[in-house]
Amino acid sequence: MGRGETTRQAILGHAVAVARQIGLEGLTIGRLAQDLKLSKSGLFAHFQSKEELQVQVLDAAASRFVEEVVKPGLKAPRGEPRVRALVEAWLAWAQSNSRPGGCPFAAAAMELDDRPGSPRDRLVRLQKDWLDVLAGTVRTAAAEGHFRSDVDPEQFAHELYGMMLGFHHAVRLLKDPHAVSRVHRAFEALLSRARPAPP
Amino acid sequence: MGRGETTRQAILGHAVAVARQIGLEGLTIGRLAQDLKLSKSGLFAHFQSKEELQVQVLDAAASRFVEEVVKPGLKAPRGEPRVRALVEAWLAWAQSNSRPGGCPFAAAAMELDDRPGSPRDRLVRLQKDWLDVLAGTVRTAAAEGHFRSDVDPEQFAHELYGMMLGFHHAVRLLKDPHAVSRVHRAFEALLSRARPAPP
Repeated sequence: MGRGETTRQAILGHAVAVARQIGLEGLTIGRLAQDLKLSKSGLFAHFQSKEELQVQVLDAAASRFVEEVVKPGLKAPRGEPRVRALVEAWLAWAQSNSRPGGCPFAAAAMELDDRPGSPRDRLVRLQKDWLDVLAGTVRTAAAEGHFRSDVDPEQFAHELYGMMLGFHHAVRLLKDPHAVSRVHRAFEALLSRARPAPP
Repeated sequence: MGRGETTRQAILGHAVAVARQIGLEGLTIGRLAQDLKLSKSGLFAHFQSKEELQVQVLDAAASRFVEEVVKPGLKAPRGEPRVRALVEAWLAWAQSNSRPGGCPFAAAAMELDDRPGSPRDRLVRLQKDWLDVLAGTVRTAAAEGHFRSDVDPEQFAHELYGMMLGFHHAVRLLKDPHAVSRVHRAFEALLSRARPAPP
């Protein structure tokens, strides 16, 4: 990485932390300049607009998600084990204590759903990409005979997403002591429905 | 209602609309004073602090939820029909076009989960009350023989909550054209699991 790129990454690291705490909308170039004691014009050289900054923050969070969840999950054997590995890694991501603002995508989804523009478009693309990965893994599990041949991969991925949002809500807002066991029971039920009927 | 109460309700009506669009944190007494051309001191007479204003906005949204969802749902016959009626009314609430910011509780949950204080405490109480209503209805369905006697009402309510958050996400962020049919399939699967095994 050149020096410009190193600086950009350092600014982005701080920007991701700020966005986690106060949301993407609070993340302005003026605020970053103040926090990092940099000139606004210098920041504009890296991020041409507030929207571009928000898009890059989402991309930075997505890179971490790929490293922490997608890559380790996809290393598991094809079929149900891979579905399980992805979901376990996703649960760990949702619970991570190093992330004081909770899952950045869950927060951004609520913040951006009513705000048309490039950050919303990027978030939607990232979330659809992730749903596609999940659905693809379910499709493979059907091909391996672990799941029924008529399982609906998109429905499965959609239900997983709701399950994870419910877990996030139970852990972070309600501080439900049973949140972990509840999400595991919900996941096992989803797997059971997907498996072929016993002969 | 006396004149003071009428004024308070009118202010609160505007405050709920503002909170829907920009979130509870953006809802300050200064902003309301400006919007409504009232004095800040007059507003302080109604809402002693920003926190108290946020609490009253949550209570106002909860009153609407009770009128639109809880009361009509509880009029259905005991057992599974009542569970269905509550969920159908809840789905209508989540989809309502008259609510441009989406479900105020889903948005507030993301906003307040990291912010200790009286608004967060009130939100948690309101959500636990609703989960209790749902779990109680499931318990009645078991007593009526519509659901298995060993159904876990709290688990059922927890899964319903996740299902609804997933629906909200699919409708509002992803604009998934299949969101309604997906949530219905997920709900039917949840009901199937809860019913006694066929003899």
